[in-house]
Amino acid sequence: MSLMTLLDYTSVLVFALTGALVASRAQLDIVGFFFLACLTAVGGGTVRDVLLDRNPVFWIAEPTYLLVACGAALGVFFTAHLFESRYRLLLWLDACALAVAVAAGSGVALSLDQGPAVVVVMGMITGCLGGLMRDVVSNEVPLVLRQGELYVTCAFAGSTATVIAAAVGFGPGLAALACAAMTFTLRAGSIHYGWCLPVYRSRPPR
Amino acid sequence: MSLMTLLDYTSVLVFALTGALVASRAQLDIVGFFFLACLTAVGGGTVRDVLLDRNPVFWIAEPTYLLVACGAALGVFFTAHLFESRYRLLLWLDACALAVAVAAGSGVALSLDQGPAVVVVMGMITGCLGGLMRDVVSNEVPLVLRQGELYVTCAFAGSTATVIAAAVGFGPGLAALACAAMTFTLRAGSIHYGWCLPVYRSRPPR
Amino acid sequence: MSLMTLLDYTSVLVFALTGALVASRAQLDIVGFFFLACLTAVGGGTVRDVLLDRNPVFWIAEPTYLLVACGAALGVFFTAHLFESRYRLLLWLDACALAVAVAAGSGVALSLDQGPAVVVVMGMITGCLGGLMRDVVSNEVPLVLRQGELYVTCAFAGSTATVIAAAVGFGPGLAALACAAMTFTLRAGSIHYGWCLPVYRSRPPR
Repeated sequence: MSLMTLLDYTSVLVFALTGALVASRAQLDIVGFFFLACLTAVGGGTVRDVLLDRNPVFWIAEPTYLLVACGAALGVFFTAHLFESRYRLLLWLDACALAVAVAAGSGVALSLDQGPAVVVVMGMITGCLGGLMRDVVSNEVPLVLRQGELYVTCAFAGSTATVIAAAVGFGPGLAALACAAMTFTLRAGSIHYGWCLPVYRSRPPR
Repeated sequence: MSLMTLLDYTSVLVFALTGALVASRAQLDIVGFFFLACLTAVGGGTVRDVLLDRNPVFWIAEPTYLLVACGAALGVFFTAHLFESRYRLLLWLDACALAVAVAAGSGVALSLDQGPAVVVVMGMITGCLGGLMRDVVSNEVPLVLRQGELYVTCAFAGSTATVIAAAVGFGPGLAALACAAMTFTLRAGSIHYGWCLPVYRSRPPR
Repeated sequence: MSLMTLLDYTSVLVFALTGALVASRAQLDIVGFFFLACLTAVGGGTVRDVLLDRNPVFWIAEPTYLLVACGAALGVFFTAHLFESRYRLLLWLDACALAVAVAAGSGVALSLDQGPAVVVVMGMITGCLGGLMRDVVSNEVPLVLRQGELYVTCAFAGSTATVIAAAVGFGPGLAALACAAMTFTLRAGSIHYGWCLPVYRSRPPR
C-alpha cells in the first residue's frame, strides 16, 4: 500500500469519526450516522479528484473506504455515550483528520506534478471541504469560519510546508510528515492555547 | 427510450414539482421557481454523472430535461394556491421522486458494471442530493436529516434491493421496480405511520 | 489574451472583492479573507468547467487566477474600513461581477458549440454559483433567493441575450457585451429602483 493510500485511509477513518460524532449530537439514527460519516470522510478527497480529473474517484476505485467510514460510524453509534465531552473529542479528532487529509491532498497534487499554487489549494480543499460539508448539511456553524481560531490557516501552512519540503529535495514521505506536523501543531495551538491571527475589525458593519 | 431514460425523466419531473413547491413556500418569482425546480430535478443525477465520469452529463446531452423541469415549475406557479396543504403534497411528491431517482441512480451504476457498494451509494446520491441542495439553498431543515423519520434509510434499502435483485438474476426492469417499491413503501410508512429507526440518544450533548 | 480569458479574470477579480467584503462583515482573519475570496471568485466557473468537462479546470491550468483573488482579498483587508457602507458596495460589486461572469459563462458554452438551453444554463451557473457558495458558507441569506429582487432573472436574461446575439450573427465580443449590458441593467434597476417580477403569493403556507 502506497503512502498516499495509507494517508487517505487514515483521514477517511478519522473524519468519519467526526461525522458520526456530529450525527450523535444531532440525534440521528444509524443510517444518518453512515451518511454524515461518509460525507465527511470522502467529501474533500472527492472534490480533489474531480478537479484534478483523477479517474475514477478514489472511493469508486476502492469501495473499502466506504466500509471503513461505515465501520467508524457504527463504532461511534454504540460508544459515544461513554465520552464525557463529545465536543472536545470532536475538535481534537477533527484536528488529526485535518492534518492527515492536508498531507494526503497536497501529496497527491505533488505526485501529479502540479505547480505550487495548485498543490497548496488541493491540500486545503482535501482538508477543509469534508468538514465544511458536514457542518453545512447539519446546520452547525462551520469550523472553517469560526472567528478567533486557526483552521483554514493551518491547512494553508501545512500545504505550504509540503511545497517547501519538496522544493528542498525531501521525498514524499518526509514532505507529508512535515505537512501533517505543521498543520496539527498550529491547530492544536489554536484549540488549546487560543492561538489566532488578528481579525478584521472596524466600525460595526451596516 | 430506454428504461433508465424514462426513470430519469420521471424523477426530474417529480423533483421539479417539489422544488417549485418549496419556491412557492418561499414566495419567489417565476425565475426563482425555475431555478429551484432545475436544481432539485437535476442536482442528484448531475453529481452521479460527474462522479462516474459519464460524459456529457445527462441534461447537457439532452436539454429536454431542463424544459420538463421548467414546465413543471410553471404549472406549480399557477396552480399551487389550489392545494389545501402544500406541505403534505410536498412530502408525498418528494417520496415518489425519491423512489424513482434511487431506482434510476442505482440502475445506471449497475449498467456501468460497478460493484455493490458503489451501486448502493450512487442510488443514495441520486435520490437524496437534489432534495438536499433544494433544502440547503432555501434554508429549510433538510428532509434528509430530520429526526424520527426514515429518509436516507429508504434510499439505502432501495439501492440494496437493486443489488439483491440483480444478484439473483432479475433484469434491469424488475430490479428498478423492486428498488422503487422498497424505497416508496418505507418512506410512505415513515410519513403516514411514523415508522422510524431508534435514534442515538444519551445524556444531552455538551 | 483571448476575450473569454479577459472576462474570466475580470469576474474573478470582482467576485473576489465581494467575497472579501463578506469576510470583513464576518470579521475573519486574513486567511479567511483568502478562502472566501477564492471560493466566490472561482466557484461558479469551476462548476461550469467540471460540467462541460473542460480539462483542466481554468484555475488549475492558470493559477494566476488564485493570485488575483488573493490580491483582491489583501486589498480589502486593509482598506474596507474606509468605506461608509460596505453592504451597498458589496451589492454593486456583486452586480458587476454577475454581469461579467454571465457573459464569460455563456460565451464559453457558446464557443464549445453547445445548444441554446445549455448556453443559458452555463451563463446562470457561472454567474450565480460563486455568490451562492459564498452566502451558504458564511450563513448569509443567499442573494440569489431574496424576495422582491431580480438576481437569477438577470443572469437568465443576460444569457438569453448571448444566445440571441449569436443567432443573429454577432461575434463573441458583441454577444458578450450585449449579455453583460442586459444583466447589469436589470440588476442595477433592481437594486436602485426596486424592479421586480410578481412573486408567488397566496394563502400563507402551512
